[in-house]
Amino acid sequence: MTMEKGISSVEVLPSKSSQVTAVKVVVKEPETKQTQRGKRVGFVLVHAGAGYHSESKAKEYKHVCKRACQKAIEKLQAGALATDAVTAALIELEDSPFTNAGMGSNLNLLGEIECDASIMDGKSLNFGAVGALSGIKNPVSVANRLLCEGQKGKLSAGRIPPCFLVGEGAFRWAVDHGIPACPPGIMATRFSLAAFKRNKRKLELAEKVETDLIQLKKRRQSNEKGSRVMCRTCGRPSRANDGSRGGDQIELYSLENDSGTLDTVGAVVVDQEGNVAAAVSSGGLALKHPGRVGQAALYGCGCWAENTGAHTPYSTAVSTSGCGEHLVRTILARECSCALQTEDAHQALLETMQNKFIGSPFLANEDGVLGGVIVLRSCRCSAEPELSQEKPTLLVEFLWSHTTESMCVGYMSAQDGKAKTHISRLPPGAVAGQSVAIEGGVCRLESPES
Amino acid sequence: MTMEKGISSVEVLPSKSSQVTAVKVVVKEPETKQTQRGKRVGFVLVHAGAGYHSESKAKEYKHVCKRACQKAIEKLQAGALATDAVTAALIELEDSPFTNAGMGSNLNLLGEIECDASIMDGKSLNFGAVGALSGIKNPVSVANRLLCEGQKGKLSAGRIPPCFLVGEGAFRWAVDHGIPACPPGIMATRFSLAAFKRNKRKLELAEKVETDLIQLKKRRQSNEKGSRVMCRTCGRPSRANDGSRGGDQIELYSLENDSGTLDTVGAVVVDQEGNVAAAVSSGGLALKHPGRVGQAALYGCGCWAENTGAHTPYSTAVSTSGCGEHLVRTILARECSCALQTEDAHQALLETMQNKFIGSPFLANEDGVLGGVIVLRSCRCSAEPELSQEKPTLLVEFLWSHTTESMCVGYMSAQDGKAKTHISRLPPGAVAGQSVAIEGGVCRLESPES
Repeated sequence: MTMEKGISSVEVLPSKSSQVTAVKVVVKEPETKQTQRGKRVGFVLVHAGAGYHSESKAKEYKHVCKRACQKAIEKLQAGALATDAVTAALIELEDSPFTNAGMGSNLNLLGEIECDASIMDGKSLNFGAVGALSGIKNPVSVANRLLCEGQKGKLSAGRIPPCFLVGEGAFRWAVDHGIPACPPGIMATRFSLAAFKRNKRKLELAEKVETDLIQLKKRRQSNEKGSRVMCRTCGRPSRANDGSRGGDQIELYSLENDSGTLDTVGAVVVDQEGNVAAAVSSGGLALKHPGRVGQAALYGCGCWAENTGAHTPYSTAVSTSGCGEHLVRTILARECSCALQTEDAHQALLETMQNKFIGSPFLANEDGVLGGVIVLRSCRCSAEPELSQEKPTLLVEFLWSHTTESMCVGYMSAQDGKAKTHISRLPPGAVAGQSVAIEGGVCRLESPES
Repeated sequence: MTMEKGISSVEVLPSKSSQVTAVKVVVKEPETKQTQRGKRVGFVLVHAGAGYHSESKAKEYKHVCKRACQKAIEKLQAGALATDAVTAALIELEDSPFTNAGMGSNLNLLGEIECDASIMDGKSLNFGAVGALSGIKNPVSVANRLLCEGQKGKLSAGRIPPCFLVGEGAFRWAVDHGIPACPPGIMATRFSLAAFKRNKRKLELAEKVETDLIQLKKRRQSNEKGSRVMCRTCGRPSRANDGSRGGDQIELYSLENDSGTLDTVGAVVVDQEGNVAAAVSSGGLALKHPGRVGQAALYGCGCWAENTGAHTPYSTAVSTSGCGEHLVRTILARECSCALQTEDAHQALLETMQNKFIGSPFLANEDGVLGGVIVLRSCRCSAEPELSQEKPTLLVEFLWSHTTESMCVGYMSAQDGKAKTHISRLPPGAVAGQSVAIEGGVCRLESPES
């Protein structure tokens, strides 16, 4: 097997928009290893969120990415399919108290944990998802079980099996299918409870300031007989105008935007047969409204996997992270997958992040567009085309891109002894929500049969 | 105002696949009316589901479509925006005990009503949705309120407002925002309760037959030492092989596929200013698992609305109906909207239904692909280009298409005295789930300013 990996150069690309800065990390550092005949091969790329990863916690994030890669590779080496491998990686990421998924998820307004997760199988194109799920330690395992049950065909009496379950119903389905319930209180960690208390205090302060502002404005309005701008849809006073948000004062009380608030986790995998799978899991935004479902549960938004087919020369797998509402409204996972069917994967992803995410008309009113993606695409090709004896080789291109301050990723092939990890950061001077960082590499996998 | 409406001819189009039959109803029957200066104009197209509409209930379905159109037009005439008008139409459709939305929705496995609904505004491109919502008479009103609240900007402390809420959290949010709770038991009707009881009996019978079959197979297997096919994802025995589904015997006990099981309702509207909006609402599949969320709640799947923009020469609005899982996996509403940006709307929609729905690789394993869409697209043009004094005219093309046995639609412009309604059916010999029917018309709306 020939591996091309390692970061060799960083170049700043000229951007079309002054708001967009692109960092391209060219990955060329060939490591030649002999193929171990009979060994299963495959590749995994994981992320521990697009958000902000402080230097103090960098080691923890890298460590969990490493373990997640190893879990996926162990599965692949044991002959498991891509969906099994991607689930194994996600369980490791969910179990970390440092990520915002599974254990240690952000708490909602009521101090509860409600998780979203989904998985997609590139071979069957099946999908499983859960939203606002409480009481299950590994939401991705429920999503995977939904995918698996969906693949078995119709239920009794011709009923169509569900692919997306939410809330209490999702919990009951999981338990009925043998997935153990997690006792209350176990999933909240010391970190998540402390962040919840800090955020609650900030919210109370912010609301007090807003109440004072409203009263101030009311007094002014009654003096000035000023007209209020009404919301054009519901006819009620516009929030932007009644003082309940937006003032510079309010920004002081904004919730913590540390890694805890946006760190959806995810993974993409290609197995020995070239099948791809993708998964994503999230605890959602800090102090979200109970019942809020974000991109991690939504088809096309949180993850995407599609094997090569009649109209798709490449197999592609994508997992997203960041502000759920931004990722939903741009259907970013599927958008990336579609774009990756053109020749230059790096250029296609960069343009997608610039034009279909930051520059999306669906997010025109947003101050900053926050998100990140990991993608891989693979195709069968000849390792050494000049030789007549062609070896069936899987070419895997993998990339990550983000508009957030940082993104933590890890990657590994089945032939590697250990995973490589990296915290990708926007270059100095680039503005989060308005700039794009993009990096990646290439890996050639020989089939074990050759 | 010039109106071109009415059905003048039916032609059967040659199809690419032997499984696809296309019926094109060319709509050309100009009715010339004078524009009433100062009167608000606009157009609405509604549907009471793609499924099977028995002749005996045809009158009821047409009647509710008519009332829904009138409600939307009343709003438009009062100067309301497209989102208000489309919500008014949906409330009327939800309130009908004959449709599978709001009142009279299908009951789930536990005999409860859980509704999905969503709305999209083509101007702001904002979206609001609820899933698995119980205890609210008009789910679309919650979706519309979410959309409206989302348009007001961030919440206190910089929190991003939710666009999608599910279950108990969605209910609490609705009540907190002044939408009245509906007392338990009110939303189930005589019809829906009777259908639930019949379906429950069928399910019990089907499950008994399946249990007997499993035991029979087990005895055979122990005799033949036959190997069992395992699910490749979860490693458990495949349902198709263990006798718990698929036998011809089972088909006898399939749940009622009458209009009650698939009848998501929806509407698309264009207002006087050319702004489009779309909405959809559904009680979901009969005997669905609690917590199951279908296309009516999902971004891109249940409805889509997008005003004309830099990359979109036409404003488009789409609402879908049918088997939720099929509509989700094809992201059909958005797919139709994208296709409608090409010149020939009729051909674009037909090809989308043939290639991206029935022929979708995402539904390759399905026996039949069941769904329907209503679409409209509009653009500003000159009513009489040969005259030098151009009048600003809105050209509205509207179409409906379905693979189900029938689809009930209604449409009306603000200048009409009453709505037109129609039950579209597949032509004789066409197979539901494998054939496409498509019909539609054109309407020219002069701006009131002219």
